[in-house]
Amino acid sequence: MAKQLLGKEVTDALNAKLIERANALKEKGVVPTLGIVRVGENPSDLSYEKGATKRAELIGINVQKFVLPEDASKEDLLKLIDEINANDAIHGVLMFRPLPKHLKADQNEICNRLDPKKDVDCMTDLSNAGVFEGRSDLGFAPCTPAACMEILDYYGIDCKGKNAVVIGRSLVVGKPAAMMLMGKNATVTVCHTKTVNTAEVCRKADILVSAAGVLNSLTKDYVRPGQVVIDVSINWDENKPNARGGLGAIAGDAVYAEVEPIVEAITPVPGGVGSVTTSVLMKHVIEAAERV
Amino acid sequence: MAKQLLGKEVTDALNAKLIERANALKEKGVVPTLGIVRVGENPSDLSYEKGATKRAELIGINVQKFVLPEDASKEDLLKLIDEINANDAIHGVLMFRPLPKHLKADQNEICNRLDPKKDVDCMTDLSNAGVFEGRSDLGFAPCTPAACMEILDYYGIDCKGKNAVVIGRSLVVGKPAAMMLMGKNATVTVCHTKTVNTAEVCRKADILVSAAGVLNSLTKDYVRPGQVVIDVSINWDENKPNARGGLGAIAGDAVYAEVEPIVEAITPVPGGVGSVTTSVLMKHVIEAAERV
Repeated sequence: MAKQLLGKEVTDALNAKLIERANALKEKGVVPTLGIVRVGENPSDLSYEKGATKRAELIGINVQKFVLPEDASKEDLLKLIDEINANDAIHGVLMFRPLPKHLKADQNEICNRLDPKKDVDCMTDLSNAGVFEGRSDLGFAPCTPAACMEILDYYGIDCKGKNAVVIGRSLVVGKPAAMMLMGKNATVTVCHTKTVNTAEVCRKADILVSAAGVLNSLTKDYVRPGQVVIDVSINWDENKPNARGGLGAIAGDAVYAEVEPIVEAITPVPGGVGSVTTSVLMKHVIEAAERV
Repeated sequence: MAKQLLGKEVTDALNAKLIERANALKEKGVVPTLGIVRVGENPSDLSYEKGATKRAELIGINVQKFVLPEDASKEDLLKLIDEINANDAIHGVLMFRPLPKHLKADQNEICNRLDPKKDVDCMTDLSNAGVFEGRSDLGFAPCTPAACMEILDYYGIDCKGKNAVVIGRSLVVGKPAAMMLMGKNATVTVCHTKTVNTAEVCRKADILVSAAGVLNSLTKDYVRPGQVVIDVSINWDENKPNARGGLGAIAGDAVYAEVEPIVEAITPVPGGVGSVTTSVLMKHVIEAAERV
């Protein structure tokens, strides 16, 4: 039976440290502040906003909300971002994406308007450059792969010289996870939809990060004893029993019941990576405030 | 006996296409122009400048040289870069690095002063972001890994689904080569000095890109029949016979005499990747001019 790598344990430990750092900042007269930019009333944005606000309060981070109507113009949004850039009291910014349809063509320009120093959710090109270059002075890494690293760190999993395999090459998870694992001195392989022998490659991994986003894609054929599996994906499984006694619940890429008995350690879904990302966002806000 | 992947063949074909594109630009009244920025009289800079100028002339690219004295100040150099940025007649810029010692601490700031649109040699963070994001609208990739891709393309080596292994994780070769191979749908593994089983990992490769920069590091233990080996490194081998009948010549990472008989194809050193990079630089200048 595998050791469960529990997001809650990681988050609790991380939060405790962040509360100390937030207090230290306040003693210096700095109130760490997260600006949340939302255009419209998308339910999933509202749900994430609620969770993030609660987490921020717990840590001692002030939250300032900037809500524009669904039909806000590009100019409205750019003006708001400019104001936030110029506002020294706001240290980090979370802007919900995707933006409404009429802003989609300009989303890249809008995202890059944010000062990378406040880009705690990696939406600027300079933050991406920082991830690629392995530098921490250019923006911040995306929260999800950073949460994977928090989990590895918390459980004392040394990556040096280990074979790490990442499934997925997206800019929000796969590629940055690969760079961060390389920064931890792992030998990193990235698999993707064009990889022909993914199961075989994965079995060679000491550390396997699955970000395929495909339910039940990570079967027993992909794993072997001794592996650490980080299941990043959040998929919907309509056949999985839920807490209300019915069917339909979130699940990762792993066929958990068959993978878990084989490997050494695994993150459950839910309760794994996802639950750490919000605290990582808060960590970035604290860091941004400390850097000022 | 392996097929030799000859830089000259690649360069000749590339140059022929670039000459056509340069002519097409001139017909539209645009003279593609490379600005060369040099601080001081470093012999290796002068030697590269001579080669680049000759190549540019061959292709029909105008070269404009901007030479500052060895003791130029940071302000002098920034002012020059600002002028070049504002000069629409200059499409691409090559600035020799490393800069003299007194400018070293500011080198990053100085490099990033250049407009990424003119950054044909990947010295800005935004160019790096473009490589990481797989976008061609943010600056240009470094010329050496781009030259590796030109060689693969010229010889019709399809990367899709192939296992590609890159030795080295530098920002000028290893990391960008990994990203570019991933962009060609290869399954990419990056090995480096902390990799414990490099030879074993390399033997699994279909395409092996060696950028270790260590003479004789790529032995027969690293290769197997069927592989394509791209030897990127330029090392000095004091025991290698040179053209003047003495000893001392440049050599790659591979122990060529033992690797070449095993693999399917290999780039010689000299005569491989190195000879393609200058034409790649010119390709970037042409592209920059075409984008205006």
